[in-house]
Amino acid sequence: MNHKIRIGIAGYGNLGRGVELALAKTIDMELIGVFTRRDPAKLQLVDARVPVHHIDNITDFTDAIDVLILCGGSKSDLPVQGPQLSALFNTVDSFDTHAKIPDYFAAVDASASKSRHTALISIGWDPGLFSLNRLFGEAILPDGDSYTFWGKGLSQGHSDALRRVSGVQAAVQYTIPAQQAMDRVRNGERPSLGTREKHTRECYVVLKQGADAAVIEHEIKTMPDYFVDYDTTVNFISLEELQREHAAMPHGGHVIRSGTTGSNTRQTVEFSLKLDSNPEFTASVIIAYARATHRLQQQGQHGAKTIFDIPPGLLSPKTPAELRKELL
Amino acid sequence: MNHKIRIGIAGYGNLGRGVELALAKTIDMELIGVFTRRDPAKLQLVDARVPVHHIDNITDFTDAIDVLILCGGSKSDLPVQGPQLSALFNTVDSFDTHAKIPDYFAAVDASASKSRHTALISIGWDPGLFSLNRLFGEAILPDGDSYTFWGKGLSQGHSDALRRVSGVQAAVQYTIPAQQAMDRVRNGERPSLGTREKHTRECYVVLKQGADAAVIEHEIKTMPDYFVDYDTTVNFISLEELQREHAAMPHGGHVIRSGTTGSNTRQTVEFSLKLDSNPEFTASVIIAYARATHRLQQQGQHGAKTIFDIPPGLLSPKTPAELRKELL
Repeated sequence: MNHKIRIGIAGYGNLGRGVELALAKTIDMELIGVFTRRDPAKLQLVDARVPVHHIDNITDFTDAIDVLILCGGSKSDLPVQGPQLSALFNTVDSFDTHAKIPDYFAAVDASASKSRHTALISIGWDPGLFSLNRLFGEAILPDGDSYTFWGKGLSQGHSDALRRVSGVQAAVQYTIPAQQAMDRVRNGERPSLGTREKHTRECYVVLKQGADAAVIEHEIKTMPDYFVDYDTTVNFISLEELQREHAAMPHGGHVIRSGTTGSNTRQTVEFSLKLDSNPEFTASVIIAYARATHRLQQQGQHGAKTIFDIPPGLLSPKTPAELRKELL
Repeated sequence: MNHKIRIGIAGYGNLGRGVELALAKTIDMELIGVFTRRDPAKLQLVDARVPVHHIDNITDFTDAIDVLILCGGSKSDLPVQGPQLSALFNTVDSFDTHAKIPDYFAAVDASASKSRHTALISIGWDPGLFSLNRLFGEAILPDGDSYTFWGKGLSQGHSDALRRVSGVQAAVQYTIPAQQAMDRVRNGERPSLGTREKHTRECYVVLKQGADAAVIEHEIKTMPDYFVDYDTTVNFISLEELQREHAAMPHGGHVIRSGTTGSNTRQTVEFSLKLDSNPEFTASVIIAYARATHRLQQQGQHGAKTIFDIPPGLLSPKTPAELRKELL
C-alpha cells in the first residue's frame, strides 16, 4: 500500500492556513510540517499538533516531504523561494503576477529540471481554473470572444491602495462585475467592453480622527491604475462596522466564451465561482494539484509545469478505472 | 513547418456535418475526406469539394489521415467501429452510453494499444466537458456534492420515444432544469433532489389524423423510464408549427459543485453551457481533442484515452510558451 502523500507548507498566512484546512479534508495526504520565517513557537496553527519549524531548517526535510506548498507572496517571496525550493523539493505555488509568469516559469524550470523535481507554478483560480477555462473556450470555439469578470469579491491589492491614502485608518474594496455587461456577453452579443463597463469598485473606509471625508473620497476616486478608470463608490463606516461586516474574504467571478459555430450558431460556455473564502478555495485547488504533482514526479516528469500541462485525472484520489466508471 | 493535421470523418449525420463545419474554423487542420455507408455520390456535404468515399475503402487511407473522427451512433455503430477503426487509425469518438464506457474503453484500448494508435473515447460535453467538471469539483472540494442539470434542450432519445407512440405523427421533447432546484444548489444548501425535482419535460406533439389527444397525452405521461417519473407537459401543435419553431437542436446544462472548506465555508463552482446547436458544439469539442490526439500519438502515447488523460494545453494550436504568456 502507498503511504499518504507527505505535504509541507512554506509560509503561514491566509493561504498557508487554507492549505492546512484543505489537507484535513483529504484521505490520501498528510501534513508533515509548517515552515516559517517567524518564531516557530509563536505560530498559531489550526491543529496544534502539527510541527512548526524555522524555514532555515527546511533542508533537513528533503526526504520527509513529497510536495512542498509555497504559500508566500508573488511580489517578493516567490521570485526567490520558487527557484530556491524547487531545487530541493517538488513544489506547488500560486504565483499570480500574470505579466511575470514567463520569467518565473523559466527560473523555476531551470532549477527543478536540474534537480529532477516537479514544480507546478501559478495554481489557484486566476491564474489557475480561470486560465484553464480561457484555454478551453478558445480551443473549442476558435470563432469567439473570451470575457473574464471578477467578483463580487474582496481585492487585496485595492484594499491595500485604500489604506495607503493619508487619513484612512482601515478599508476594504470589493470588485463587482457589471450585470448588464455579463448579460450582453451571455446573450452572444460579443460586445467590445471597456474597463469601466465591466466592473465597478465599492470601497468601505474608516477615517482617522479629524480626516476630511470629501478630500479622501476625491483622492480615492482619482487614484491612477486603481480607481480612476472605474465607477467607484466610497462608503465611510465605523471601525466596528468594518470589523463586523467586512472581515470575510469572499471572491469569485466568471469566465465566459461566446462563439459561433457553422454559419451563425451561437454557443456560450461559462465557468463561475462563488467563494465565501478566497484563500481557502485557492488552497483547495492547490492541494488537488499537489496530488498531481506527486504523481507526475513518480512518472519522471520533471521541471516546471503549469495547469495546462496536467492531465485532470491526476487530481483525483480515484484510479483511472474508477473515474471512467463513476464520473465520465 | 508541420503539415496541417489531416482529419477524416467516418459517418455523416448531424455530428459528421458538425465536424465538417468545425474544421472550417481551424487554422491547423484539414478535412481529407468523408467516409459513408451510403452511396458517396448522393451525400450532400456543406463543402462540395470535400471527397466522399465508401467506408469499405477506408483502408486505402491509413497513410493519408492523422486522426479519424468516428461520427456513428453509440448504440450499434461505435461498439463495432471503435475497436475496428482504432486498429487502423488514431480515432476520436463521442461514445455516450455511460454505463457501457468501461467495456467500450477495454475493447478500444486492446485494439489501439496493439496497433500503436491513440484512441480518445467519449468526447463531447456529456460525457466530456461535464465529466471533466464533475472531476474538478470532486477533487477540489472533497467535502461537497455534485449536481448535473441538463437543458433547456432537445432530447433525441425522448423525442424518439414520443414518435413511437401510436397516433403520433411527429414530436420533439425538451428537457428543462428546475430553476428552484438549481437555486437551492447554488445557495449551498446541498439538497437531496429526486428525479422529479431536478427536471421537467415539455413535449410538442403532432397528431395523426383521427388520433385521440387525451389518450395519447395519458400514454406519454405514464410512459415508464421516459416520462412517468417527471412532471411532463404535452402540447399538441400542427406539423407546420413543429417545423417552423422546433427544428433546431438547442441544448446545454449546468454542472454545479457545492462544498465546504475549513469549518463551514461555502464554496460553489459552476460550469454551464448554452448551445444553439448541440451537434455543432459537440463537434467543436471533438475537433479540439483531435488536435490533442494527434499530439499524444506523436509523443508515443498509445491506447485508449479519455478526457481525464489529456493535458489541456494540447487542445490549443498555440505553443506552451504562448499559452503561459497569453492565457495563464
